[in-house]
Amino acid sequence: MELLYLSRRDVESLNISYNEVINAVELSFKLKGEGKVQLPPKPGVNPRPNSFIHAMPAYVGEVDVVGVKWVSGYLGNPARGLPYINAILILNDPETGLPVAVMDATWITAVRTAAASAVAVKYMASPGAESLGIVGLGVQGRTHLLAIREVLRLRRVYVHDVIKQKVKAYIEEMSPQCPEAEIVPCEDYKCVTRNSDVVVTATYIVERPKRFIALKDLREEFLAIPVDYDAAFEEDVARAVDVFVVDDKEQYLVTKGKEKYFKGYPDIVEFDMGDVVAGRAGDLRVKARKMALLMGIASHDVVVAKLIYDKAIKRGVGVKLPL
Amino acid sequence: MELLYLSRRDVESLNISYNEVINAVELSFKLKGEGKVQLPPKPGVNPRPNSFIHAMPAYVGEVDVVGVKWVSGYLGNPARGLPYINAILILNDPETGLPVAVMDATWITAVRTAAASAVAVKYMASPGAESLGIVGLGVQGRTHLLAIREVLRLRRVYVHDVIKQKVKAYIEEMSPQCPEAEIVPCEDYKCVTRNSDVVVTATYIVERPKRFIALKDLREEFLAIPVDYDAAFEEDVARAVDVFVVDDKEQYLVTKGKEKYFKGYPDIVEFDMGDVVAGRAGDLRVKARKMALLMGIASHDVVVAKLIYDKAIKRGVGVKLPL
Repeated sequence: MELLYLSRRDVESLNISYNEVINAVELSFKLKGEGKVQLPPKPGVNPRPNSFIHAMPAYVGEVDVVGVKWVSGYLGNPARGLPYINAILILNDPETGLPVAVMDATWITAVRTAAASAVAVKYMASPGAESLGIVGLGVQGRTHLLAIREVLRLRRVYVHDVIKQKVKAYIEEMSPQCPEAEIVPCEDYKCVTRNSDVVVTATYIVERPKRFIALKDLREEFLAIPVDYDAAFEEDVARAVDVFVVDDKEQYLVTKGKEKYFKGYPDIVEFDMGDVVAGRAGDLRVKARKMALLMGIASHDVVVAKLIYDKAIKRGVGVKLPL
Repeated sequence: MELLYLSRRDVESLNISYNEVINAVELSFKLKGEGKVQLPPKPGVNPRPNSFIHAMPAYVGEVDVVGVKWVSGYLGNPARGLPYINAILILNDPETGLPVAVMDATWITAVRTAAASAVAVKYMASPGAESLGIVGLGVQGRTHLLAIREVLRLRRVYVHDVIKQKVKAYIEEMSPQCPEAEIVPCEDYKCVTRNSDVVVTATYIVERPKRFIALKDLREEFLAIPVDYDAAFEEDVARAVDVFVVDDKEQYLVTKGKEKYFKGYPDIVEFDMGDVVAGRAGDLRVKARKMALLMGIASHDVVVAKLIYDKAIKRGVGVKLPL
């Protein structure tokens, strides 16, 4: 019995496109909406202050894929020259439970998160939307541009980070990868939010969020996508929207119930992205003010891991190990 | 950045003794009793009927070890010539969250489960106890004999399995490994329970338990250790005991709350093994009728994984992989 090991470099060498990941994530949202996904709430431990390691198991029926992601976030890592997020994923044979692959999941985490946002944009952004705003220019600030340009006809991208040098580096790095749009540097977040049809916030998730984007900072029509819990958007935004969607109802309500995050955010969620993609929420694109709060779900990790595994086997990438 | 991979054979080649494992498990029970262990309830998925895969994360303070076990149980596997239980464990650097090792955890699961029972025997068996009974002669039936002989002066071991050939094979295999005691084959479970001071049941955990050992089948003084949830002991045993201890209160109550297992078993648990080993439960050996219900906890997996990791590094065992 053998196990395929794929390092970060192995995974990246497969050059899986954003489109492939978006399609996989979209399908897994649909299957979730159809009740074919098992997605228990993710438990975690905190070995140090401002650190977490979460276990994220999932089974996605029909695609028939099962696995777990074990993902850490250490706020102190960047200062040490180490990545903030590190993750490993184990994929199993759903027929026997035997592990078939162990792979780096740092790339998966970076890309599937942006792909989930892209699916939200596809189903929720107003038909005429052409400007994207990004607050927080780290890994997610990069992957979100590359994913969302696949689903939106972008003309302008407004970007801001509290660290000025990051804005300049971002524009230099991303402009060639997104030649169809002008990337506009912003001195403050308001320049981003007042000019953008779709606003993505990708700042750090901290233990005590200091929110800063209020309803008055946004356009009359907008789609807000926080990928940083409630680190950025004020309560009045979450309350005022015509549509408030999350990626997984149970996970949102469990986290909110712990009373650390999402104070003042809605207590009742009518739809999650599973319902939206399965067609049970109607056409949300026609609504004016919308928020898709995406915390990240394990079903996305495992479907993307399956893409990686199948391609790696086909191309002979990775190391085979004895079980 | 590197990751150490240890296969099943690598782990077994280290020849870690039952005593070492028992000591590690005993210490981690004590630390749990002192509130130094983070042990969230284990979530799981069920990709097939009569199958499970559980994610078991834990952080053990003081020893400062963190990791997750991903363990599957497929009832259909033995008929296919595959192990019922298969497990992989990831160990991380608690300071940075980076993974440092991925290892087979099938051996860990087999041995740490028996070691936890041995700790229960050490703290709970009557001082004069000299006979052990084992019902169910699979992997756990074997490891339990080897672990418990480290803490009990055994004279006789009564064994039974519904499959007769397993009894014969067991005696042939285990007698040389436990020369100090006579291993007595039993035609039925009653011969085991009526002759044994300590009774271990290690049958299969099934979705609908058919319990069969009643209070009248047991001696006046006994220590009952079910490692198969409530697959064996009737409700009247669990209700009649002077002491009812579990390995983790929260996990027991969460599982019981789902109303599939433990019907009629106690709703309130005064002590768990953490309290017992930390000295907060008094001397339980003097009580007549006792049950230690051990479902298995992740803190044991990670402390044993640390034993393995340290020894593997010292001896240069395993394969180093790029992260």
